[in-house]
Amino acid sequence: MTIADRWLLPDGMDEVLPPQATRMETLRRALLDLYYRWGYDLVMPPPVEFLDSLLTGTGTDLDLQTFKLTDQLTGRMMGASADVTPQVARMDAHSLKHRGPARLCYCSHVLRAKADQHQGGRSPVQVGVELFGHAGLEADLEILRLALASLVTAGSQEIHLALGHIGIYRALVEACALSREAELALFEAIERKSPAETEALVDAQIDDPAVARMIKALPGLHGGRDMLDEARAVFADGPAPLGAALDQLQALCEGVAHGPDDVTLYVDLADLRGYQYHTGMMFAAYVPGYGQALVKGGRYDDTGRAFGRARPATGFSMDLKLLATLTEQQPPCDGIWAPADETAGASELDAVVARLREAGERVVRALPGQHADPVEHRCNRRLVRLGDDWQVSPLA
Amino acid sequence: MTIADRWLLPDGMDEVLPPQATRMETLRRALLDLYYRWGYDLVMPPPVEFLDSLLTGTGTDLDLQTFKLTDQLTGRMMGASADVTPQVARMDAHSLKHRGPARLCYCSHVLRAKADQHQGGRSPVQVGVELFGHAGLEADLEILRLALASLVTAGSQEIHLALGHIGIYRALVEACALSREAELALFEAIERKSPAETEALVDAQIDDPAVARMIKALPGLHGGRDMLDEARAVFADGPAPLGAALDQLQALCEGVAHGPDDVTLYVDLADLRGYQYHTGMMFAAYVPGYGQALVKGGRYDDTGRAFGRARPATGFSMDLKLLATLTEQQPPCDGIWAPADETAGASELDAVVARLREAGERVVRALPGQHADPVEHRCNRRLVRLGDDWQVSPLA
Repeated sequence: MTIADRWLLPDGMDEVLPPQATRMETLRRALLDLYYRWGYDLVMPPPVEFLDSLLTGTGTDLDLQTFKLTDQLTGRMMGASADVTPQVARMDAHSLKHRGPARLCYCSHVLRAKADQHQGGRSPVQVGVELFGHAGLEADLEILRLALASLVTAGSQEIHLALGHIGIYRALVEACALSREAELALFEAIERKSPAETEALVDAQIDDPAVARMIKALPGLHGGRDMLDEARAVFADGPAPLGAALDQLQALCEGVAHGPDDVTLYVDLADLRGYQYHTGMMFAAYVPGYGQALVKGGRYDDTGRAFGRARPATGFSMDLKLLATLTEQQPPCDGIWAPADETAGASELDAVVARLREAGERVVRALPGQHADPVEHRCNRRLVRLGDDWQVSPLA
Repeated sequence: MTIADRWLLPDGMDEVLPPQATRMETLRRALLDLYYRWGYDLVMPPPVEFLDSLLTGTGTDLDLQTFKLTDQLTGRMMGASADVTPQVARMDAHSLKHRGPARLCYCSHVLRAKADQHQGGRSPVQVGVELFGHAGLEADLEILRLALASLVTAGSQEIHLALGHIGIYRALVEACALSREAELALFEAIERKSPAETEALVDAQIDDPAVARMIKALPGLHGGRDMLDEARAVFADGPAPLGAALDQLQALCEGVAHGPDDVTLYVDLADLRGYQYHTGMMFAAYVPGYGQALVKGGRYDDTGRAFGRARPATGFSMDLKLLATLTEQQPPCDGIWAPADETAGASELDAVVARLREAGERVVRALPGQHADPVEHRCNRRLVRLGDDWQVSPLA
């Protein structure tokens, strides 16, 4: 084996070096502090669970993404967490059992067996929040606002918020009893926003002219907030859930309008991301310069049913690794460079260094024989002997 | 599958709920801040690497503890990190390549295939520091002091520090050319601190009477700092490395004496823990009420050789999960309970809540229909309407 074989890292399993690791830690703290101020309690899910738990309920579509491990103690299959959300849903349903709404947040390393081109590497640090136990729109709006506040905290200057609602597609498809294959083909055509494909499939499969018209319109129903008026006209005679979904999107658009000024709203009724998973509004937030969404979230009710307790739920998550690349802030250069131990007076110098550190100063101690540039160690001052005393002086 | 099957967690793969997760986060910050003030830079190793990297160099004895995974992209075997130290050694040797000494710290979840009864669960959060590139005792002393400062930060009231030096046993064994089996038997006898077994093995295998006498004395050479005088007498005619090791232990004892007052020193020359790994002084720190060491560390030179660059190294690590059980501090009850959205004036209330949060207050917003006790949500005040205004009032 060559030395290069030994230091090569698997694709998408990145190490984080200084100063990027410090940026991530700073952002982690800022986000968790933000969630604390909004009333969200921190939880830490286990990095590994039995596969039966991970791939149940909201985790059903994670199979291909989950690394499998054999538990040597029981012989049962375990999986490394690929998504924290189903784990937090389990914790809410089984471990916490709060009577009313519960607000939880987390920041944990997850592992993915395959690199998802839309999600960066295979070892993201997933940070996010979940609000359980309230089915009303107030919870969705709080989640949406907190997602935007998260991006602002991370340093985003300009946010594009894409809003959707899985209830619209679901209501239309349920109205026309398609075969499994036909529904899948239709799903893919709409997800690709292809009007021609959608039209061909609808003409071949759907008899009800009103529903056919509405489904054909779906791929074109995206745009600014005003598009909702157009959608209301298209869905005027549609099943009742359509109107309710549009009302919700309208209210969310209005609610977000009170938030940070630099948010551009985009509503997309053909967004079918997370179809298996979501049950209501869905959103994704984008920032210029990034080809993928930095935040993804939405409502996923009935989570926890597999663990004995169905609960309404809404939340979002982000990759802290990706988010920390929004700023290139350098760590401060504000340390004090202290000389190495000297035979005489070393313990006196030790005491001076200890006092400075207790006062919150960063003191980097030279080691004997080390001739380093203090600036490379982010020091802008040094400790120098002045008669019998030690004094902090600016670098010469 | 029953519901209980779904929420059961694998043995030693614990979830952390509030308020314990908050205690861990608070301690994580306090420790990383401490290391920052001492000049240590944060790194984040990947949670998974190729097995060839993980089990090389200082990681050779980790095989049984490492979960194995197949990389679907390359077909190569990967392992989940069971110990961060070899990874940080790789990062120092290959990724960072600092000319002089490098100070690094980390706080990462690791996974262990088997529960080690001395190390708690199978998913510890390993936090620690490494000092690379300085072979002198100054580095060991700094590491020792920083380990003690870590325990004080975590709230330890009374610390028992056990110091050893692998160089003593190593020098004695090298002086008598034993067979592999004989050496292993001797190793185990001394590790068990069994004078009778040690004596029988020495009498059967070792001809040199001086070396035989010294090895026989090893199981008895543990005690307070004064024991070092006894050891000096025993090893007076021994190989040169013995004297050097005793000098080092003496200097470390003196250096630590300047630290926190509540440290009880214990020197143990028969401590052979990490024999494959360590190359000089070793230490472990204990706190009353805990059956296992809370901190383990020592010198492990020549790390990085497998990655193309041998470097002196010394450091320590701890389990943040375990360490966070030292205090049972409750999170503060200092939040403000805000009412749910009202039809009239909701956005005005939104603005008040936003201002309070910006000022650093924790504001927990009721959701419509939620009748909760604000104290359960750690609030000691509430927002009440006063005419046209909103005001923060103590709980009635």
